[in-house]
Amino acid sequence: MGSLELAERKTTGWAAKDPSGILSPYTYNLRNTGPEDVYVKVICCGICHTDIHQIKNDLGMSKYPMVPGHEVVGEVVEVGSGVTKFRTGDVVGVGCIVGCCKNCRSCEKDIEQYCNKKIWSYNDVYTDGNPTQGGFAGAMVVDQKFVVKIPEGMAPEQAAPLLCAGVTVYSPLNHFGFKKSGLKGAILGLGGVGHMGVKIAKAMGHHVTVISSSNKKREEALEHLGADDYVVSSDAAQMQEITDSLDYIIDTVPVFHPLEPYLSLLKVDGKLILMGVINTPLQFISPMVMLGRKSITGSFIGSMKETQEMLEFCKDKGLSSTIEVVKMDYINTAFERLEKNDVRYRFVVDVAGSKLDQ
Amino acid sequence: MGSLELAERKTTGWAAKDPSGILSPYTYNLRNTGPEDVYVKVICCGICHTDIHQIKNDLGMSKYPMVPGHEVVGEVVEVGSGVTKFRTGDVVGVGCIVGCCKNCRSCEKDIEQYCNKKIWSYNDVYTDGNPTQGGFAGAMVVDQKFVVKIPEGMAPEQAAPLLCAGVTVYSPLNHFGFKKSGLKGAILGLGGVGHMGVKIAKAMGHHVTVISSSNKKREEALEHLGADDYVVSSDAAQMQEITDSLDYIIDTVPVFHPLEPYLSLLKVDGKLILMGVINTPLQFISPMVMLGRKSITGSFIGSMKETQEMLEFCKDKGLSSTIEVVKMDYINTAFERLEKNDVRYRFVVDVAGSKLDQ
Repeated sequence: MGSLELAERKTTGWAAKDPSGILSPYTYNLRNTGPEDVYVKVICCGICHTDIHQIKNDLGMSKYPMVPGHEVVGEVVEVGSGVTKFRTGDVVGVGCIVGCCKNCRSCEKDIEQYCNKKIWSYNDVYTDGNPTQGGFAGAMVVDQKFVVKIPEGMAPEQAAPLLCAGVTVYSPLNHFGFKKSGLKGAILGLGGVGHMGVKIAKAMGHHVTVISSSNKKREEALEHLGADDYVVSSDAAQMQEITDSLDYIIDTVPVFHPLEPYLSLLKVDGKLILMGVINTPLQFISPMVMLGRKSITGSFIGSMKETQEMLEFCKDKGLSSTIEVVKMDYINTAFERLEKNDVRYRFVVDVAGSKLDQ
Repeated sequence: MGSLELAERKTTGWAAKDPSGILSPYTYNLRNTGPEDVYVKVICCGICHTDIHQIKNDLGMSKYPMVPGHEVVGEVVEVGSGVTKFRTGDVVGVGCIVGCCKNCRSCEKDIEQYCNKKIWSYNDVYTDGNPTQGGFAGAMVVDQKFVVKIPEGMAPEQAAPLLCAGVTVYSPLNHFGFKKSGLKGAILGLGGVGHMGVKIAKAMGHHVTVISSSNKKREEALEHLGADDYVVSSDAAQMQEITDSLDYIIDTVPVFHPLEPYLSLLKVDGKLILMGVINTPLQFISPMVMLGRKSITGSFIGSMKETQEMLEFCKDKGLSSTIEVVKMDYINTAFERLEKNDVRYRFVVDVAGSKLDQ
């Protein structure tokens, strides 16, 4: 407490220095722990596919040096005078966002992920004018609004992928009224978000079909992830069999693909929920939505409220992420492997065990 | 009552005989009034744009002779033994559908407009194997499930356009949770459905903007229909002014158009509701829906339950259609004028006054 008198402190992270995207150690200042801030010593941090786009400047908006990482689990070492939700020693999580305007319609409705002035956990500028830096670092200072409590008994490395991939699928299922048993859903694409989609949808009590472009992941989906069915999208007979049967499809495919084959799988009032940022226009013909009152929609991560709720949900259901834990000095290799989809399903960096701040 | 003993009866309608779409008198048999049937003497019938596609075989599925007309208001002259909802002398309405399977998920949920076995009011085949014929005729025999009561005091010619155009906009506003005051909506395109959209949305207490491709209909929209605002879609400054402000857009444009300019007008969670059957693929980029949890959806007419509800709603609100009443022998001219959008906003044929069955 009484942290305002403290001087600025340094931490060491691994940063990309240019669009090569190669990360290497980088030491920088952390702001003082303000009244609303939580000072977090990072335990571990998941690697998300988005991190690759950011470190390589794929979106043309990257600023260097950049410490990525937005699936951060850590331990509270200090809290500001106005912080009531957290205390020293708590294990907490930080996700994609560390700031919002707190005034707009979205902020007032607790869906701050849709605030136009949201501040990203890294590669953004904080209210003090300094760059934000992510979780592949010894420590972070974060406004308590953007900190969640990791439920008692949940392993930090299990919690990390939930903070982005997990809430990204939990949020639309929750928001669109699918958090109830007895529904039929499909997950299109089986990567970091997709695998979490299967697990969360199963935990909600749904009949879950994985739809994939090939048979390669059939055993994995059915045996290891617990999916109920597996359909190859190019197999017309298999697709025909599940026509008009699904309440929703979570579409995680991040490249152009036709929507009509999937719209036809939906029941009346079914929803196609897009998760992939695709800048090539997607196409559909209007009768495909009108003649079944279907919706093409999408959503973007989840709110802090939903993130907390989702963590409790996963704890209650005993849901675990499928991860590969690596040390910090492996991160460049991990990024290379992730780019080739060579991971089951999420890398989590053991940050504390990598002893960055010593 | 006890109508099963009655012989088949004839009626005279105006039918298209070939894809020229020219209508001329045509006499045909009506089925006996079965236990569930209502025998209706037609009073008047609205002309819908869809009728043009049907009589001209634009969809390649037309069978001749074809008596169009699916905005039918008439008087009950006989009811089957199992009919409890209607009695002789009632003024009733018939819309786009006269049959459904009564067993499927949609039928069980009273959204029979989405039943895969629905039977169209005309240009379809009834359960008895005979062609269905529409409302530009002296009489119709219709299953009571597909008959609604016209509220006491509502003029038949006012009621007619509500049975298709009216319920087509009422249904999505009702279904998607927009039947409450204080919302902001827009109507894109100001034809038969669009003009009804303005009136119904205003009656629900919404702030209504008409979006049009030119300034031509500004005065009409603001002065006569009661819209609150008017925006020309090609005027970037006007469009910018209403960015991020709308809860919904009812999009009645029946030809290809870009969706992105309209998606950007929606608030977070806003809905773009398509009403136009367009077989050219429409396009959008996924971030446009994801980064505001927006939906592209559509709907198709409305259920019988909603049709009845909508009639009561319009009666309560004193809502009137803007129509031009014509006699039956004017119908070919009316179709020609409708094709050129030369009508404010709906033709209604005074069928009873045209004395077809005499």
